[in-house]
Amino acid sequence: MRFRPVPVTLPGRERSDAAAILADIRRDVDEAILEAIGDMPARSLRLADAMRYAATSGGKRFRAALTVTVTQMLGGTRSMALRAAAAIECVHAQSLVHDDLPCMDNDDLRRGRPTAHRQFDEATALLAGDALLALAFDILADPRTHHHAGVRAELVLRLARSVGQDGLAGGQMMDLYPSEIISSAELIACLAGKTGSLIRYAVEAGILLGHADDQCNAGLLSFAQDLGLLFQLQDDLLDAVGDERVVGKALGKDAAKNRKNAVSVLGAEGAAQEAQRLLASCAKALEPFGDRAACLLELARFAARRTL
Amino acid sequence: MRFRPVPVTLPGRERSDAAAILADIRRDVDEAILEAIGDMPARSLRLADAMRYAATSGGKRFRAALTVTVTQMLGGTRSMALRAAAAIECVHAQSLVHDDLPCMDNDDLRRGRPTAHRQFDEATALLAGDALLALAFDILADPRTHHHAGVRAELVLRLARSVGQDGLAGGQMMDLYPSEIISSAELIACLAGKTGSLIRYAVEAGILLGHADDQCNAGLLSFAQDLGLLFQLQDDLLDAVGDERVVGKALGKDAAKNRKNAVSVLGAEGAAQEAQRLLASCAKALEPFGDRAACLLELARFAARRTL
Repeated sequence: MRFRPVPVTLPGRERSDAAAILADIRRDVDEAILEAIGDMPARSLRLADAMRYAATSGGKRFRAALTVTVTQMLGGTRSMALRAAAAIECVHAQSLVHDDLPCMDNDDLRRGRPTAHRQFDEATALLAGDALLALAFDILADPRTHHHAGVRAELVLRLARSVGQDGLAGGQMMDLYPSEIISSAELIACLAGKTGSLIRYAVEAGILLGHADDQCNAGLLSFAQDLGLLFQLQDDLLDAVGDERVVGKALGKDAAKNRKNAVSVLGAEGAAQEAQRLLASCAKALEPFGDRAACLLELARFAARRTL
Repeated sequence: MRFRPVPVTLPGRERSDAAAILADIRRDVDEAILEAIGDMPARSLRLADAMRYAATSGGKRFRAALTVTVTQMLGGTRSMALRAAAAIECVHAQSLVHDDLPCMDNDDLRRGRPTAHRQFDEATALLAGDALLALAFDILADPRTHHHAGVRAELVLRLARSVGQDGLAGGQMMDLYPSEIISSAELIACLAGKTGSLIRYAVEAGILLGHADDQCNAGLLSFAQDLGLLFQLQDDLLDAVGDERVVGKALGKDAAKNRKNAVSVLGAEGAAQEAQRLLASCAKALEPFGDRAACLLELARFAARRTL
């Protein structure tokens, strides 16, 4: 029996302006990424082309939107948030480029276009990924991202941890080499690493760039944790029941490779229920912010009902 | 006619304690790397194994020795220098792991042992490289590396630039896709990026961790620049005329792939002469430091006469 996707909803007003928030961010963050990649003729033009192709070809910019929205909600500066957002999208693009390589998922399609190694070649895709990861740290450590070196160093430290063993790379390894018996707890750890880590970091970067007191901070970190899991649950649901033409990448991969994910462990209904619970928890964590959190709540709702 | 390698030498006393300096650093830097990789059971054990395999299996530790030697020469703290040195060796290991992959050089042997993707598999090697790169930034941004956030942010910024488009990744791309007509100037740019950038950074990190005034700084930066080129020239000479059993990796690759390098452009004799000139320039840059620079000069001599 195939599960029919039911958009997760919250009671109360349902505004549909997440798309507007995301479109608005996309333009600005693309500009910030292109500026960071730069245009120096002494460099390898092919490498720069591949970096631009990977990092600015569509994408929802959900992570970028989180950083900018949280920063602005806390009274921080949008231009700084856009730089941090650009760094996060560079890391996201790097993880996708490496994930798509033949030795990993061997994907031909990403965001509705040929994957980077299809458009260029494997070596170029590999090096473009490495260069994008380096560029992310370059952006964050640059004084233009924040005038306090302490904030820059902290942005770097947390990003490094979101990318390494306890983050993206660790999550992808657990995906490739899952334990024989996967418990719900192990699944959560894997989801938290694979996608959750960068979603969580996107919120954390906003906290660092805004002016949050410790209490706000704790509430937002709990929001970030839940949102990361919610986002990955929805990814797994889309992999199981989504429309490839809408999502713009190959689906059904986890089932085809007999890979454990939220749907195979919890069932589609169970995963959807868990997503609903997480969205409610996100909304609760934002309550103290009242109307100021309207955009952020919109983004959480988007994560729960997204079809791509 | 095959060129016979002649060790480049400087007039004056010739002490052979570079080996002792390197052996001494190796033990300490390996310890710092292993501590940074850590041993948390919740993580992917396979990923950590591959990271340890790639980052602590031999290697000359030449870059690490530069950082520690420069830091100590300038009155900085050895334990901090060892952390920065560990970060640099993680980046170096990452670049080798990715460079050895089938889509790049497709090498089976590295430091006399199977390359990471041979010992594990391609996906594991790819992710171990990514995680090592992230770990390098993690180490540098950690307060244990330096108490001033400004120094940490600067260490990060310069490393990111040594790794990205203007550094390792850019140099590797120029190697893979050389211009049709390669001039000596282009060759220098490529060499400077590919290997020179990380050698130069190793000295820069020492300058940041030590207490250099601007004049010392300028002299050491010129030393770093020359040493980076010297090191790569010797690499190209070894590729042309070295002994695989001593070097511990496949040689003759540039010639086999018809790849431009210092030897193919300058000739073996020309490259050796250029190496001799660079060593003399390194020695001159160190003159103002007198005896304090003895170890550093030893390392430069090692770079010029190394057979592995």
